[in-house]
Amino acid sequence: MGSPVGLHRVREPAGVLPQAAWRLDARPEIEPDEVRLSVERLNLDAASFRQLTEAHGGDGDAVRDEVVKIVSERGKLHNPVTGSGGMLIGTVDEAGPASPLGLRPGDRVATLVSLTLTPLAVTDGLAGWDGRGEQAPARGHAILFARSAAAVLPDDLPATLALAVLDVCGAPALTARTVAAGRPVAVLGAAGKSGALSLAAARRAGAGRTVGVVPTAAERDRLVAAGLADEVVLADARDAVAVSEAVRGALGGEGAGVTVVCVDVPGCEHGAILATAGGGTVIFFSMATSFTAAALGAEGLAADVTMLIGNGYVPGHAAMALELVRTEAGVRRLIEARLQAD
Amino acid sequence: MGSPVGLHRVREPAGVLPQAAWRLDARPEIEPDEVRLSVERLNLDAASFRQLTEAHGGDGDAVRDEVVKIVSERGKLHNPVTGSGGMLIGTVDEAGPASPLGLRPGDRVATLVSLTLTPLAVTDGLAGWDGRGEQAPARGHAILFARSAAAVLPDDLPATLALAVLDVCGAPALTARTVAAGRPVAVLGAAGKSGALSLAAARRAGAGRTVGVVPTAAERDRLVAAGLADEVVLADARDAVAVSEAVRGALGGEGAGVTVVCVDVPGCEHGAILATAGGGTVIFFSMATSFTAAALGAEGLAADVTMLIGNGYVPGHAAMALELVRTEAGVRRLIEARLQAD
Repeated sequence: MGSPVGLHRVREPAGVLPQAAWRLDARPEIEPDEVRLSVERLNLDAASFRQLTEAHGGDGDAVRDEVVKIVSERGKLHNPVTGSGGMLIGTVDEAGPASPLGLRPGDRVATLVSLTLTPLAVTDGLAGWDGRGEQAPARGHAILFARSAAAVLPDDLPATLALAVLDVCGAPALTARTVAAGRPVAVLGAAGKSGALSLAAARRAGAGRTVGVVPTAAERDRLVAAGLADEVVLADARDAVAVSEAVRGALGGEGAGVTVVCVDVPGCEHGAILATAGGGTVIFFSMATSFTAAALGAEGLAADVTMLIGNGYVPGHAAMALELVRTEAGVRRLIEARLQAD
Repeated sequence: MGSPVGLHRVREPAGVLPQAAWRLDARPEIEPDEVRLSVERLNLDAASFRQLTEAHGGDGDAVRDEVVKIVSERGKLHNPVTGSGGMLIGTVDEAGPASPLGLRPGDRVATLVSLTLTPLAVTDGLAGWDGRGEQAPARGHAILFARSAAAVLPDDLPATLALAVLDVCGAPALTARTVAAGRPVAVLGAAGKSGALSLAAARRAGAGRTVGVVPTAAERDRLVAAGLADEVVLADARDAVAVSEAVRGALGGEGAGVTVVCVDVPGCEHGAILATAGGGTVIFFSMATSFTAAALGAEGLAADVTMLIGNGYVPGHAAMALELVRTEAGVRRLIEARLQAD
């Protein structure tokens, strides 16, 4: 039997959990409590894909080669610069008799744990991917531990849409849990996947006025058309003063009770803090968040705000996010538009 | 009049808050809402001092020279590697007529906002400091904005003790706010300044069983003698499995309701998450915390825990921490012992 959290797959350094490991053992043979998936598609997380694209000046072939190299060296898709990964779609190839995940051979699933801790081998050099979008068709295998999470893909949604939604499904679930009835909510990066889902979840959870912050007129128009926010405002999320003024302007001078950060670029901590009312909460979902910038920023602004590290796991998160995309036409339109743009 | 958050002191890049700036303007002339302090002593934060010491192989002169260089280049003591700073003691030299901080010339104060955003000039090359401890005697000046925070030093405590306590006073205040009555609390790095204060604060707030985790037998003996925890256990906080087993062992198999991370080394995120019960909360106070390691670690362990970025500002934090050190002999002994060891 393997370790439920995958300690037996850690190659180096010894003694750490798979996510902290430099290298995992991605051998295809499974322990009785493991599951092996046949990989169909990788979904790089936004921060990682953006970093790779910028590092290679937009050269898709170079991005692809680097992803192949990372997987080959580390036994997992774990971007060493951003520290982030993504998720994948695959089909259950073999489920150990002691696996508690309830999966059966042939089930088509999306992994709900990060690729940064999922043993992975790629066998086709990602030949079917041009390196220019977050979703990469792939052949190979991946391993799930006893304490992993995966969702069987729904029949009624396209796989690419389901994967995109499941990739960020922690955001709407944690937003819904955090929102207080009647209190205003601001979402930075509101026209993205996690932003749109978080806005919809906030409204369902009984939020007061909702404000979506976006960086461009095109995103503003799309978000207005989607009808997910009471107010849509334009601001660069890295410009702390501009963000704060935009949100407070939309809320009649008041700060947000909950501010949700879904912008995948560094430097958005201070704007989120300044936009939040005293006693309010900031939820950071962006993997580009700096812990010290947030901690010292709030202290330096003498801001009495609660700051949450966006945990990608909340019980029931996958079902909730899929339900939002089924029932909120605006969410679905926004996410499909982004997938087409990729 | 200056900007209340100090925007007028940002030299580069333009448009960011002082904490995010590469360089501040530390000119001594003040705006009507600013305060100028005559500096007496700098207190480097633990993560920064440790990084500098390791980078220079324990050479105190080299550490001192680098701190002088940082302040001279950046107009603030902002360690570019750790992103952290510290705080200072000084005397009010001039208080602008519009300053809301209530300080008067001659007041001896400690700053409660980070040195990473405090305009600072050092004029003595830190000649009185050997570079081997966190507290550096210094001559020069520093600037407080309208929206800063500073505490007048109490007459009944030595300045070095008060400074050490005020430096981490956010930790006990946020711990007290987070603890639920009767629920167990674990503190990693429990024999340090913030750890000891957090343990005492948790107990006062009505915590159930308290567990202190320390890395060495010497610290264990000191913490047992201080009488601040119901259980004291030995574990390397970077060894996730060891930490979890130690905490759960001390709690009869249960996880902690609140786990407080006060260890100033990287890699403690996973142990804290594993040591925490489902539905519980982890508070990260260490500036060495990795946002992505925490977010992806919790997701990868399918751990339903709330994770807080330790905000150094909580209303009333300074008074609460000073009161703890006055009334809890064990806390005072531990902190004084650490100061002597410096």
